[in-house]
Amino acid sequence: MPELSKDTTLCISLSGRPSNIGTRFHNFLYAELGIDFVYKAFTTTDIAAAIGGVRALGIRGCSVSMPFKEAVIPLVDRIEASAAAIGSINTIVNDHGVLTASNTDYEAIASLIESHRLDPAASVLVRGSGGMAKAVVAAFHGAGFTDITVVARNAEAGPALAATYDARWVADDPGPGADIIVNVTPLGMDGADAETLAFSPAHIAAAGTVFDVVAFPAETPLIRAARAAGKPVISGAEVIALQAAGQFARYTGVTPTAEQVQRASAHSRV
Amino acid sequence: MPELSKDTTLCISLSGRPSNIGTRFHNFLYAELGIDFVYKAFTTTDIAAAIGGVRALGIRGCSVSMPFKEAVIPLVDRIEASAAAIGSINTIVNDHGVLTASNTDYEAIASLIESHRLDPAASVLVRGSGGMAKAVVAAFHGAGFTDITVVARNAEAGPALAATYDARWVADDPGPGADIIVNVTPLGMDGADAETLAFSPAHIAAAGTVFDVVAFPAETPLIRAARAAGKPVISGAEVIALQAAGQFARYTGVTPTAEQVQRASAHSRV
Repeated sequence: MPELSKDTTLCISLSGRPSNIGTRFHNFLYAELGIDFVYKAFTTTDIAAAIGGVRALGIRGCSVSMPFKEAVIPLVDRIEASAAAIGSINTIVNDHGVLTASNTDYEAIASLIESHRLDPAASVLVRGSGGMAKAVVAAFHGAGFTDITVVARNAEAGPALAATYDARWVADDPGPGADIIVNVTPLGMDGADAETLAFSPAHIAAAGTVFDVVAFPAETPLIRAARAAGKPVISGAEVIALQAAGQFARYTGVTPTAEQVQRASAHSRV
Repeated sequence: MPELSKDTTLCISLSGRPSNIGTRFHNFLYAELGIDFVYKAFTTTDIAAAIGGVRALGIRGCSVSMPFKEAVIPLVDRIEASAAAIGSINTIVNDHGVLTASNTDYEAIASLIESHRLDPAASVLVRGSGGMAKAVVAAFHGAGFTDITVVARNAEAGPALAATYDARWVADDPGPGADIIVNVTPLGMDGADAETLAFSPAHIAAAGTVFDVVAFPAETPLIRAARAAGKPVISGAEVIALQAAGQFARYTGVTPTAEQVQRASAHSRV
């Protein structure tokens, strides 16, 4: 890393359990692109004071992860429409004390729906009803998909999410048949559920595209099973890299190339 | 610099007009000693929110300069006795959300009085009545000096400072004769007063030791004139390096050697 000066711009992240990903991703690109910024992950037990500190210290950008994505809403000055609609923020940009919030998860998913040329006529089955599921359903809805089913055991969040985007809610697995299946639960994530397949083999066999938002590992049981079945996949690693690139562009004003994002992403996952 | 991780500890400074000194001094020693810390200077227009951010973000250390040295007093949890007596803080250490304040300027000056073996029987003439002058007069008083004169045009701060430490206050130059003369005004500092000699040649000729708290440049007109007259000198560069080393030790728990402090100081002044 280059030597810091008083003029080096700081960006941070706030999350309950910081990982090294953002710190490594952003610092890699700063060095690669010769941008005088530095990035570091933080956690906090006082989100209001932490965001107050972002504003008062002139910290340029603040990435927001679980469990703060909703709590920061009343702490910012402006919210971009897509983030306001979802009610979930993952990005705060500080322009001389004015904090503008957005959701680059939503934007990354919308971008992947487009780049993978998913057909709005397809049926979509989304498993999960948390903050990231909101971004997923909002993005499919925003892309013109009308046949969306949310499967979630949470009898409050599930119906509420479905109702917001004219989707259907079911508490239990409706069985295979959806064209696009999307996992937005922790199933398959490093940890207790690492070995759990988020959708049954029958779901995978019936699907045209398999989308797993879990980013660690990049090759979840669902992604592995889908590849084995010859299905096109969209991985959480793609989502996390794209959303981080969106944050990078907002913080620095510089848009990295796809190749640079890919190398930063590979570097960040070590 | 080594690559940052989520576990890298951040220390900062807060001042009205940040310089590069602290950032270069601390980061040099972190690299030299293999300590996983990073340091950056900040300014703010909201000192209360900035200190709240230090606490909420777990920023380990915060160096405080003009004009915040008094304003931070009500924002911390504990104040070391020497800093409380002076009413001026330049160092905040954050132990898991508990902020402890101290004044390493005071400690650096006390240390220099001792290492230069200044005689408590000597008469001392201090020019200035600001926050740093408080630290100077307190340190001489604390070292047992009883013949201290404060010369300051400020008819409030001057007498108040003198009264606190059993010193004499005079508004105008009392004329030469003091054994130790100490400049704690901006006279001789880079800027408008860069060419101004803080004490007359007659003062210098009469003095046994010449002490200039101005750190930029290291060789002020006063220091140059004192050297030319063959007088022992104590420079602001010594004060700033020693006080920074004191902060470094408090933040990291590691005390750098005098040789490391000297190299860090030389690096920081480039």
